[in-house]
Amino acid sequence: MTEATEDCIFCKVVAGELPSETVDSDERTITVLDINPATKGHVVVIPRTHTADFFEVSEQDLDAVMVATRRVSERLKLTLEPAGFNLLTNVGRAAWQSIFHFHLHVIPRYEGDPLELPWRPEPADPEQLAAVAAELRA
Amino acid sequence: MTEATEDCIFCKVVAGELPSETVDSDERTITVLDINPATKGHVVVIPRTHTADFFEVSEQDLDAVMVATRRVSERLKLTLEPAGFNLLTNVGRAAWQSIFHFHLHVIPRYEGDPLELPWRPEPADPEQLAAVAAELRA
Repeated sequence: MTEATEDCIFCKVVAGELPSETVDSDERTITVLDINPATKGHVVVIPRTHTADFFEVSEQDLDAVMVATRRVSERLKLTLEPAGFNLLTNVGRAAWQSIFHFHLHVIPRYEGDPLELPWRPEPADPEQLAAVAAELRA
Repeated sequence: MTEATEDCIFCKVVAGELPSETVDSDERTITVLDINPATKGHVVVIPRTHTADFFEVSEQDLDAVMVATRRVSERLKLTLEPAGFNLLTNVGRAAWQSIFHFHLHVIPRYEGDPLELPWRPEPADPEQLAAVAAELRA
């Protein structure tokens, strides 16, 4: 299932070869806004090292993703004041995985929002993404 | 958000005061079949210690849940041969959380299954649950 690193979108994001709205980063992870967000503030936490999925990621990187997820979620809570969160990772195409580089979705939820999963991916307005990212980085 | 431990369904499951189909357990966690399964083999990984959600659970218990999740998922792979998995935890009612004791859903996925989230909770036939649990414990 592991695609070659050179074909991996998230490896390119990690390397800075594709533009992204990065809202958090540390030695092992980066967190970027999902460009097809399910809700406002939807981010994905990505280990820098390429592995295909939850089963392949190293224990250290999985731990680092969990730590980053809590840190980023706390920031999301303070800035966007969501009513809750879905934390989700998908393994395999049958489970809606589309990028085969392990990542955890952090999806803020708002009272009465109509979200169902799988959400219908639609690109967000880049200016809106940039505004949300600026809030989260502040 | 933390309910009193004595009112918590999962604390009762942990204490053996409510029947459950346990498929895995260790010092810090137990894993039981969801009684309203989204798909065949849907389990929840539960820390023994009560905390409300992903934000309250201790780092040690979160690590233990991750380790148990990989172990249980590997067993699910071998026995039920799903095509993939969704791993999900919900925080807050607005995000579909209904039991306020931290737990991680492990939802096996099958080619072409019609799952959408939130799934419509419907009790499974206890005999079917018991049969799946027996497969997983074997």
